[in-house]
Amino acid sequence: GGKQYKRGPTARVFVNRSLSLDKIKFFGFDMDYTLAVYKSPQYEELGFELARDRLIHCGYPEELKRYIYDPGFVLRGLIFDRLLGHMLKVDTYGNILVCTHGFKFLKTSEVIQDYPNKFIQLDDTKRYYICNTLFNLPEIYLQACVINYFSTTDGYVKVVFAKTEGVQRGNLMMSYATIHTDIRSAVDSLHFNGELKDKTVENLDKYVVKEPKLPLLLDRMREHGKVFLVTNSDFKYTNVSGRILLWELYFDVVLVEARKPKFFGEGSVLRKVDMETGKLHIGHYTGSLKKGAVYSGGSSDTLCDMMNAKGKEILYIGDHIFGDILKSKKRRGWRTFLVVPEMSHELAIWLEKKDLYHRLNELDAMIGVKYRHLDSASRERPNIQSLQESIRSAVHEMDMSFGTFGSLFRSGSRQTFFASQVTRYADLYASSFINLLYYPFCYFFRAPAVLMPHESTVDHDS
Amino acid sequence: GGKQYKRGPTARVFVNRSLSLDKIKFFGFDMDYTLAVYKSPQYEELGFELARDRLIHCGYPEELKRYIYDPGFVLRGLIFDRLLGHMLKVDTYGNILVCTHGFKFLKTSEVIQDYPNKFIQLDDTKRYYICNTLFNLPEIYLQACVINYFSTTDGYVKVVFAKTEGVQRGNLMMSYATIHTDIRSAVDSLHFNGELKDKTVENLDKYVVKEPKLPLLLDRMREHGKVFLVTNSDFKYTNVSGRILLWELYFDVVLVEARKPKFFGEGSVLRKVDMETGKLHIGHYTGSLKKGAVYSGGSSDTLCDMMNAKGKEILYIGDHIFGDILKSKKRRGWRTFLVVPEMSHELAIWLEKKDLYHRLNELDAMIGVKYRHLDSASRERPNIQSLQESIRSAVHEMDMSFGTFGSLFRSGSRQTFFASQVTRYADLYASSFINLLYYPFCYFFRAPAVLMPHESTVDHDS
Amino acid sequence: GGKQYKRGPTARVFVNRSLSLDKIKFFGFDMDYTLAVYKSPQYEELGFELARDRLIHCGYPEELKRYIYDPGFVLRGLIFDRLLGHMLKVDTYGNILVCTHGFKFLKTSEVIQDYPNKFIQLDDTKRYYICNTLFNLPEIYLQACVINYFSTTDGYVKVVFAKTEGVQRGNLMMSYATIHTDIRSAVDSLHFNGELKDKTVENLDKYVVKEPKLPLLLDRMREHGKVFLVTNSDFKYTNVSGRILLWELYFDVVLVEARKPKFFGEGSVLRKVDMETGKLHIGHYTGSLKKGAVYSGGSSDTLCDMMNAKGKEILYIGDHIFGDILKSKKRRGWRTFLVVPEMSHELAIWLEKKDLYHRLNELDAMIGVKYRHLDSASRERPNIQSLQESIRSAVHEMDMSFGTFGSLFRSGSRQTFFASQVTRYADLYASSFINLLYYPFCYFFRAPAVLMPHESTVDHDS
Amino acid sequence: GGKQYKRGPTARVFVNRSLSLDKIKFFGFDMDYTLAVYKSPQYEELGFELARDRLIHCGYPEELKRYIYDPGFVLRGLIFDRLLGHMLKVDTYGNILVCTHGFKFLKTSEVIQDYPNKFIQLDDTKRYYICNTLFNLPEIYLQACVINYFSTTDGYVKVVFAKTEGVQRGNLMMSYATIHTDIRSAVDSLHFNGELKDKTVENLDKYVVKEPKLPLLLDRMREHGKVFLVTNSDFKYTNVSGRILLWELYFDVVLVEARKPKFFGEGSVLRKVDMETGKLHIGHYTGSLKKGAVYSGGSSDTLCDMMNAKGKEILYIGDHIFGDILKSKKRRGWRTFLVVPEMSHELAIWLEKKDLYHRLNELDAMIGVKYRHLDSASRERPNIQSLQESIRSAVHEMDMSFGTFGSLFRSGSRQTFFASQVTRYADLYASSFINLLYYPFCYFFRAPAVLMPHESTVDHDS
Repeated sequence: GGKQYKRGPTARVFVNRSLSLDKIKFFGFDMDYTLAVYKSPQYEELGFELARDRLIHCGYPEELKRYIYDPGFVLRGLIFDRLLGHMLKVDTYGNILVCTHGFKFLKTSEVIQDYPNKFIQLDDTKRYYICNTLFNLPEIYLQACVINYFSTTDGYVKVVFAKTEGVQRGNLMMSYATIHTDIRSAVDSLHFNGELKDKTVENLDKYVVKEPKLPLLLDRMREHGKVFLVTNSDFKYTNVSGRILLWELYFDVVLVEARKPKFFGEGSVLRKVDMETGKLHIGHYTGSLKKGAVYSGGSSDTLCDMMNAKGKEILYIGDHIFGDILKSKKRRGWRTFLVVPEMSHELAIWLEKKDLYHRLNELDAMIGVKYRHLDSASRERPNIQSLQESIRSAVHEMDMSFGTFGSLFRSGSRQTFFASQVTRYADLYASSFINLLYYPFCYFFRAPAVLMPHESTVDHDS
Repeated sequence: GGKQYKRGPTARVFVNRSLSLDKIKFFGFDMDYTLAVYKSPQYEELGFELARDRLIHCGYPEELKRYIYDPGFVLRGLIFDRLLGHMLKVDTYGNILVCTHGFKFLKTSEVIQDYPNKFIQLDDTKRYYICNTLFNLPEIYLQACVINYFSTTDGYVKVVFAKTEGVQRGNLMMSYATIHTDIRSAVDSLHFNGELKDKTVENLDKYVVKEPKLPLLLDRMREHGKVFLVTNSDFKYTNVSGRILLWELYFDVVLVEARKPKFFGEGSVLRKVDMETGKLHIGHYTGSLKKGAVYSGGSSDTLCDMMNAKGKEILYIGDHIFGDILKSKKRRGWRTFLVVPEMSHELAIWLEKKDLYHRLNELDAMIGVKYRHLDSASRERPNIQSLQESIRSAVHEMDMSFGTFGSLFRSGSRQTFFASQVTRYADLYASSFINLLYYPFCYFFRAPAVLMPHESTVDHDS
Repeated sequence: GGKQYKRGPTARVFVNRSLSLDKIKFFGFDMDYTLAVYKSPQYEELGFELARDRLIHCGYPEELKRYIYDPGFVLRGLIFDRLLGHMLKVDTYGNILVCTHGFKFLKTSEVIQDYPNKFIQLDDTKRYYICNTLFNLPEIYLQACVINYFSTTDGYVKVVFAKTEGVQRGNLMMSYATIHTDIRSAVDSLHFNGELKDKTVENLDKYVVKEPKLPLLLDRMREHGKVFLVTNSDFKYTNVSGRILLWELYFDVVLVEARKPKFFGEGSVLRKVDMETGKLHIGHYTGSLKKGAVYSGGSSDTLCDMMNAKGKEILYIGDHIFGDILKSKKRRGWRTFLVVPEMSHELAIWLEKKDLYHRLNELDAMIGVKYRHLDSASRERPNIQSLQESIRSAVHEMDMSFGTFGSLFRSGSRQTFFASQVTRYADLYASSFINLLYYPFCYFFRAPAVLMPHESTVDHDS
Repeated sequence: GGKQYKRGPTARVFVNRSLSLDKIKFFGFDMDYTLAVYKSPQYEELGFELARDRLIHCGYPEELKRYIYDPGFVLRGLIFDRLLGHMLKVDTYGNILVCTHGFKFLKTSEVIQDYPNKFIQLDDTKRYYICNTLFNLPEIYLQACVINYFSTTDGYVKVVFAKTEGVQRGNLMMSYATIHTDIRSAVDSLHFNGELKDKTVENLDKYVVKEPKLPLLLDRMREHGKVFLVTNSDFKYTNVSGRILLWELYFDVVLVEARKPKFFGEGSVLRKVDMETGKLHIGHYTGSLKKGAVYSGGSSDTLCDMMNAKGKEILYIGDHIFGDILKSKKRRGWRTFLVVPEMSHELAIWLEKKDLYHRLNELDAMIGVKYRHLDSASRERPNIQSLQESIRSAVHEMDMSFGTFGSLFRSGSRQTFFASQVTRYADLYASSFINLLYYPFCYFFRAPAVLMPHESTVDHDS
């Protein structure tokens, strides 16, 4: 390969769609998991414990107290099947890669019994809940704990009741859907009533990463453009986190309670925040956006108008899948930078296990060789069983190197649904936006060509 | 690269999703452009002329008679903008690659004026019409002719009327949307009233390719499974084409007037065809499907039930983007083989111009080198203008090798929307299903791994 | 009662919503059953026979030939249940008043078995087809004939197949839904291919009423405003009927192929008709609307703009339930006059059977008297059985006076769904628009007050 | 009139659809404004003051404190236009009867300027908010106060901003839509955080009517069937109000947090309430419903199943428009009894002003007489101006007898939208369900016939 890079893998920014940094005049930031980076697994552990205790408070068994958060048994992008209570990892097309029930991994034969084509309809959002954000990690584990508890505790039996599946003891039936709703409510209430944020603020050093290079990068960005913050958090919390981030100094515009993804569509009323009391001024704010002030609500359209920005001059940096930006009919073409903290781990394993990947390719080629001289007239059936077994074991070894649920992005030669979302919705992605520090502001990020099967396979054999 | 293939590029079958031919027990076929292959450009030329003459019959200017079909000015996958009258080629995400108005290619500055972000909302199906099938080729050219005529003929001026754009002369206003509707109606009526099929039947040698290997392949398929035909054409035409294809001999089940894509969802009433008269029997047919009989309507579910087939045991071979198979909530997991007759041409150019592609990669790497020692503190701006110019000219040269509108699949490093549809909806694809002749029925088609940017770029630099 | 009317009942115009004729500047007309009045039952008989023969041509049994149209077994507003094959008459709320299967009237116990609450969900338009127009009368009878045939012919048995109900013989299953679809297609094709209109034109005297007062009324209207015609029929037929109606002389604007109800919403392209050839000019017509010319398509909005009319200055006269006018978001408030040819018959019976209605009220009051001195503490149960029997028999006698299916508007004290539609959607209604001849153009049509139960019952007893 | 009633007008139950009390086996109750009757206007006054103070707390001007609740300036069924800030009273079809802005009544000419056809699209629920319940009364008045304040206070000017209308001072723009949202949030939060209920409980004698006849009626009902309670309130409040109502003694089933109208459709999870703590048990409750226990959630279907009830055996008594019962596809035909506390006042005025209504009819007839001998040939224009003036003044006098906004049910000869909803959705209605005390349980409620215009007007003149 002819390419040479100065920047180490984890310091690098990756490119799905070419982007000239030169043309970016506005750098927008999300707050949580972007500017405010949480320490993992401490922060997830906190979320897990608070949510678990709230479940118990709501009447779930005290015995759930015994469960302790295990960061090795979660992966972003997992999908919860509210009907059957399974947690699934699927590929781009919805084909099932991994299926668990509580802490139990289902065998292929068991998977086929529940999903005859090993396939799920991802657009059935009533049935499938996609754990897209890092905030979902604690509830993935909590889900496993609760289902494990009911599956392994005497007195509970599996039942089907009113078309929903679940477990029953006496007059009490716990459908998997209800359990999921209860867990989601517990987690939402932590965010809503501020319990999680209060605990975080009490012990900032334990839960929040202090990034020493942040002021430097923001300073440099402000030499090349404007810097703004758009967060769904409310003023009170933004204020606390923000003070640490010195946002009065760095951000030209601060928007709280933005209600993304609605912000990228119709939006809500733009109001000014009274910084003494934290309360919102009534009515629509119609003046210009001032540095040092804080606003609430608004929409991407309003913001563009008020900053006099074209969409393609904005690079918005966040930790979410930006589906709503792309889909929104009102979209003005904001460019996107996705922060994927898991990248460091993923890249380390990928580099370390490169041999396994090459081996997979070799095994694949060896299968090809076996069929080489055959055509549709052939009665001969080459024995590829041991090769297939070797492939399966290489894939498994590779998966296990990443963790219990394998890689965030792939399983063997197949990409995950999460990987396809990243490809689709992020122009750039990296483990941290701090990586931008290592690129000049005139940089031209170039997307590597992605070849189709006929291009990649034909090209090799000349 | 370690892979070695016996089969020449155009004889090969390409793989998006791994598939074991061993497990396929049913081979389903579409009729048009699949079993019945039309001679190009003769057949498109016929369609163009009939549609053009029908437009004239409907009141369009006689002068349109002067236009002659040019196969070099069409490409499958182009998108017609009914509001502005432009024909567009776009990438996977809807970014505009090429834009024409009549026969005129718009400059980038002109494109930006009409589409400020060089982006279209592909899901706005009222505005954008996607020319997905080979049957659309004649109308793409006809659209260009008509718009060319009105744009270049004295007396017609561009106007906006009742929020639609178009051209006007006197009291008569031709909106681009109306023109498109008229052309679509003209083309549909050719199919509906049988005019096109009658002309084809009159001169089969001129319009239809006789594939000598077809009986051999069908024979071999029938040794390994059942063979069926599902076409939207009516009995009369299927009968004519079919006789030539000797379908009484080869097909275990023949379904006409299937109304795909509805066939893959709710479907319609299954009726038996009276083979003497060609008329349908009334009522639902509820018996078993017999070889030698012909049926009309039905659904993929009914067909599976009646053939006692599981979805994954079926390989359905056709020339359409099979979106409806995948999306259908009732889908039973049919596997798909897409026939892309353009593949021969595409592959030939791809191989011939491989050097250009390598050069593109090199130029790309050279840009990287220019930025190598810079970071966000750098004030230095490397001059990459001439490199960019070289890239642009290499992309253009590559595009032009494929034809006026470039390749069906890509433009430089970017894939077309059509390419992404092929990737998404076809398990296998090839220039002709006859290529299956070169593979044993125990073959294991393996999908090459598609790497994400962080995997492909990091891998190189160890 | 203090009111006195000069005009006889059948010459009168009835008022749902007050309207000052003084303010009407534009009189719009529908064609079929409005300007062109068909002779009943001759015209329905013709429609029945043509549709019946077409069914036979499509494979339905020759024996259907034996059925002869019976105008006594049809009523506008009946509803066909595509699932169960029943024909229903329902009240305002969807409660079932009458239920037939073929020619058989179901007993209450049978109705309850099929509809446990004797109630249908009128908004389930997939299941229920409402026969709203006079054009539906022949198919109501044809439906009864076909179901009668299959229910009473040896060899056919009732079955449920793929969730649809119907009858089966051998491999052939006729679901009621299929039968309905086939009948609807047969009827539509008569209209579409012009067969019905050709036959009508061949024998105008037999099928079309010649209204001698029409020119006089149109003349008088034109003294007070403009007169226009908006019909869904095409030019060819409008031309024939129209010539008889001398429309070149009377109508200021003539619009054919209007595609109502779409006309009252988005509409379609307004085109000019070439009166020599009958063909449409291509493109949008953008000039002013001229007397003597004929136009095609357009929308209510376009028409208002071009005539410089405000909605409330237009009185639109037709035979349809004008739901779309009222519902359309783009509606500009056209006033409506519904022609209900059945009115003459309905009024004659109503007046003739007034005593029965009074008797019903008396019986009703007698029931009240029985309960007079009772309250919730009473254990006594007055015997009202014979009174209820008398009411039932009075209602039945009244119903039968109107015809087999009773009145278009009511059954005893309950209004039909059709009646509620007339009330909701028509400002004025009458048996013919000719009745306007008997009112001065300065007339103020006043709606009688409709009292609520507490107003009507409390008022009496002072 | 032949009918004679023992029961005085306000003790009577009125009938939209006939109903035999004999067949009712289950009496269901709503809580608020049904079982628990609030003293008017004290309770509305409390709601107004709490909501007003909350607005001030949110930043609205302190000066709003000066406004005092005026029960004469509210009427159920009024509609707020979020775009223009007007409060509207409309008839059945959406034609405007009254229009106010703050405390100002708009003149007809002003109404026409804002609503060219004096008509609103009631189904545009984004724009129009219908004040259907008695809980809406305080906010109707609060809306008037706030708009009055901004309209009459120096410094605020009317503006249009981002397509919304409102008032502006400096950088602050208050759109009418925002004001409405703020008021709705204020009112909702009173209900949500329990503030209103706490105040009510603190001073029950002041706010809640003690109905001495309630135990007697419930006792009698329980002799004839079962009695149940379905309320959207939570357990805590139900418990307090309920104790007073002695619900442990009287109700066979008690369901709290029912989430009507969702309860009548999909419903929510049925849970048991822990009566010690008031908390919900987790999981679905699947046992039988026990007297003395309290349940939460569920659905009408579940409830029917568990009580072994058919829908038509249930009479559900509440103060809401039961649209959702009728519309729900899952509806099982519950019968409905609407409590309309305003009935006493409405009936008193109706009886008192009967002469005015008769006078209206006479005036109407006198207009008829003026046109009696005219037809479409007449040039003569009878002068009906003074008659129309007399009608207008009679209608106005009648309206004013009811209150500032006229009657809940009508204006002159026109019915209100609210009246049409009552007719459509309630089988029975009365000022209080206590009126059932005056009817035997074998009573047959008979609906008076409602005549169509042709029936009512033709009938008179024989």
